[in-house]
Amino acid sequence: MSNFGFQHLRVVNPYDVAFEGARSAVGAAQVLVNAERYETLAEAVADCSLVVGTTAIGHRDLQHSLQRLEAGAPIIRAHVASGPCALLFGSEKFGLSNRDMSHCHWLMHIATREKHRTMNLGQAVAVCLYELMRDPCALAKPEKGTRAASAEVERITGTLLAALKASDYPKLNTSDSFEGAVRRLVRRLRLQTGDAEFLLGMLRQMVWKMKHGRDAEG
Amino acid sequence: MSNFGFQHLRVVNPYDVAFEGARSAVGAAQVLVNAERYETLAEAVADCSLVVGTTAIGHRDLQHSLQRLEAGAPIIRAHVASGPCALLFGSEKFGLSNRDMSHCHWLMHIATREKHRTMNLGQAVAVCLYELMRDPCALAKPEKGTRAASAEVERITGTLLAALKASDYPKLNTSDSFEGAVRRLVRRLRLQTGDAEFLLGMLRQMVWKMKHGRDAEG
Repeated sequence: MSNFGFQHLRVVNPYDVAFEGARSAVGAAQVLVNAERYETLAEAVADCSLVVGTTAIGHRDLQHSLQRLEAGAPIIRAHVASGPCALLFGSEKFGLSNRDMSHCHWLMHIATREKHRTMNLGQAVAVCLYELMRDPCALAKPEKGTRAASAEVERITGTLLAALKASDYPKLNTSDSFEGAVRRLVRRLRLQTGDAEFLLGMLRQMVWKMKHGRDAEG
Repeated sequence: MSNFGFQHLRVVNPYDVAFEGARSAVGAAQVLVNAERYETLAEAVADCSLVVGTTAIGHRDLQHSLQRLEAGAPIIRAHVASGPCALLFGSEKFGLSNRDMSHCHWLMHIATREKHRTMNLGQAVAVCLYELMRDPCALAKPEKGTRAASAEVERITGTLLAALKASDYPKLNTSDSFEGAVRRLVRRLRLQTGDAEFLLGMLRQMVWKMKHGRDAEG
């Protein structure tokens, strides 16, 4: 809840020992410290003008209309502008009772695999709140850095060919189109400016070593 | 993982006692039973052609490009058609190390509140896998049942007016526009067929009781 900016946790008839223990623990999240306790669900949602229940469905006939999370979230977001909305979760073990559901305007579910429908409560809450705060317009960021210009890329092609020649790479002399294949390979690497310089330095050092290394040693 | 249909869990260098205990527990999830152990991250991702790391960011300068989950998920979905992809999560406490991240092609984060960035590991995994399986085209379902026809709605208006008259409701005689206000009120209820009949029956019973009840008692 705190991750996604939801502040108001209301707990209906919690198991005293566990609830008071958790809320008074050192480092308890502020959401939990501020949680309000209610004896009944009716009191907990009294000031809410929209009450949406969550369910894993499957085991009972629902009297309510049921929305998939992706479709329900925009309805909730639209409502919040006009009045408070409660998102209702049942117990980990049993979910919401039919009586609980009768306090809801409609129900919502997370689309899960048919063979594994029920979710861990904490994960279900996280997924629902994520969807409510999700930004459908978030765009992929361009990759870091700038793509190397053609001249830089061509310097690498040339230095790589020189390195291959210095290493007596056999295919250099057997194929006319080899230079073209190397040029295309280097372009497929989609090098960025810094990386192009980095690679060029490595290749130049290898060329130097292959041409002069043996002389220096000898 | 199992909820969203992800089958392949790979664990790098886990704490033996906890991992083997969890996997051999009665009722352990199939995903955990089938989990593969690796000594190093390099071995764990060896067959993957895309490795995406997850991070809560904030505490260090990232060398990688960083995508928000909403924007990164489509890139992953597109990649999966051409080859296996690993989604990498660090430990609950420390996240991924810089060394771990150097095995990644890029990084992804869940947009959380600035003041509470780090998420529970299980919740972060659930949110990421939900986003990967999310259906952006899921549409809100129409409400259950069919909306009551005007004739039905008008029968309710008439019976409600009759009930008000029978109850000596004071405003009935003071305002010419009262009937119109009641008609509009009933239409704002957006009654469905079954509910319209249900309400009509209640109102008719009340009208009957108000007209004949006292006579019957007396």
